[in-house]
Amino acid sequence: MQSVILATTRLFAILGDPIAQVGSPRVFNPLMAKAGADAVLLPMHVTPADLKTAFQGIKTIRNFDGLIFTIPHKMAAMGLVDEVSMTGQLVGAINVARRESDGRWIGDMFDGRGCVRGLKDQGDDPEGKAVLLVGAGGGGSAVACGLAEAGAARMTIHDVDKAKAERLVDTVRRGYPGVPVALGAPDPTGHNLVVNCTPLGMKPDDPLPLQAEKLEAGTVLVDIVLKPDWTKLLEAARQRGCRTMNGIAMLRGQSMEIARFFGFG
Amino acid sequence: MQSVILATTRLFAILGDPIAQVGSPRVFNPLMAKAGADAVLLPMHVTPADLKTAFQGIKTIRNFDGLIFTIPHKMAAMGLVDEVSMTGQLVGAINVARRESDGRWIGDMFDGRGCVRGLKDQGDDPEGKAVLLVGAGGGGSAVACGLAEAGAARMTIHDVDKAKAERLVDTVRRGYPGVPVALGAPDPTGHNLVVNCTPLGMKPDDPLPLQAEKLEAGTVLVDIVLKPDWTKLLEAARQRGCRTMNGIAMLRGQSMEIARFFGFG
Repeated sequence: MQSVILATTRLFAILGDPIAQVGSPRVFNPLMAKAGADAVLLPMHVTPADLKTAFQGIKTIRNFDGLIFTIPHKMAAMGLVDEVSMTGQLVGAINVARRESDGRWIGDMFDGRGCVRGLKDQGDDPEGKAVLLVGAGGGGSAVACGLAEAGAARMTIHDVDKAKAERLVDTVRRGYPGVPVALGAPDPTGHNLVVNCTPLGMKPDDPLPLQAEKLEAGTVLVDIVLKPDWTKLLEAARQRGCRTMNGIAMLRGQSMEIARFFGFG
Repeated sequence: MQSVILATTRLFAILGDPIAQVGSPRVFNPLMAKAGADAVLLPMHVTPADLKTAFQGIKTIRNFDGLIFTIPHKMAAMGLVDEVSMTGQLVGAINVARRESDGRWIGDMFDGRGCVRGLKDQGDDPEGKAVLLVGAGGGGSAVACGLAEAGAARMTIHDVDKAKAERLVDTVRRGYPGVPVALGAPDPTGHNLVVNCTPLGMKPDDPLPLQAEKLEAGTVLVDIVLKPDWTKLLEAARQRGCRTMNGIAMLRGQSMEIARFFGFG
């Protein structure tokens, strides 16, 4: 199901390199049609070297209203828009932008809010949770800020690259001074929301990204890995009586939030 | 009916200012779907001042394969593509462009070929016809070149602006030296294919663009006016026993030719 393309149709697109594997066209076009919007979301294959020129061109198209940025554009896109949200500034990247009524483009970062929305949708509101977050890269930064924004009680951050983990601790501290945050081991003990933001789990022989044997029943375990949709970590958590959320559910949560940002949520 | 938008979908667009009135999205999307193409054609509202920036951006989008240019971009677009067809060069304008396999963009002009295709589709092949063409503007130039290319036997050209008519006579002479062409009165006598390329007929109180009372039975009368789809001139021709073709049929013919140019004809 998708909107019929007419002369009046408003345009949205996802920009990535490569593009043929992204899920957004399949997710957003039905959402737009269901909302009764005369709008479509298109795939656009743009290389990093061309991103600026592509964006400058897209800005001139008056019926073009919004963009999703995916790999490898999330950091570079931040330098192109007219204004970046606080979350985007903290994370140092954006994954969406939209045209405001005054013609300016504002960018925002929904990778973290998608995790929050997914958790809320399954009844696991992160508010008040003690969070262990493993993996302080782009995804980890966005999720850390998202969880802090959503009212996490405290947060422990781990990365095999200690400097990276320290930078993210500083970021969260600066952005959300009310949320105690510290560097720590990949040990779930004392945390009731544990999130894997490393790519470990994509390959069959990857080691577990954290000490899964210490997971306690009742803890919520999130794995942002998309493929496979059921990782060894998720299975270990399930066996220990944890509630779980996979990368697909997080992406679904994010899509709902982005749809709202685009005006048909 | 239109193709489902996937991450693999190829993009085409029509660029115009304004855009909300164009018919191409409604015409081409069903054509593409019917051809089994994973492709859609989008409306894009771009002003003359932005045309160059928009085109530079579009060129960077690797899954963007073709463009239709409509009012007011047909002349300016010629300066943007890497190569212009002979017809485009003669007319001094293009209305389509596509990306070649080597990445270069070539432009072509189908306004005239649409007229030819429409005539052929209704069994009135312009080959061998003695043509009277009234109105030597953009549309008239394209149609004159199209009919000459299709093998018209000879051509008389009239415009109230004599210098304009003279320029078009020169153009046809230069491009198609085998087709005798001359300046003349808007008098159908001695012609068996008569084409109105002026805007006269759009308003209810417009005078007739040519001496309709001299039309002879059997002559083919073409009126490129789109709105209304049945002009006073077409009615006068019908009453005198002429065969007729209106602007809609010409546009339909052109769409078929452009679809072929885009690779799904």
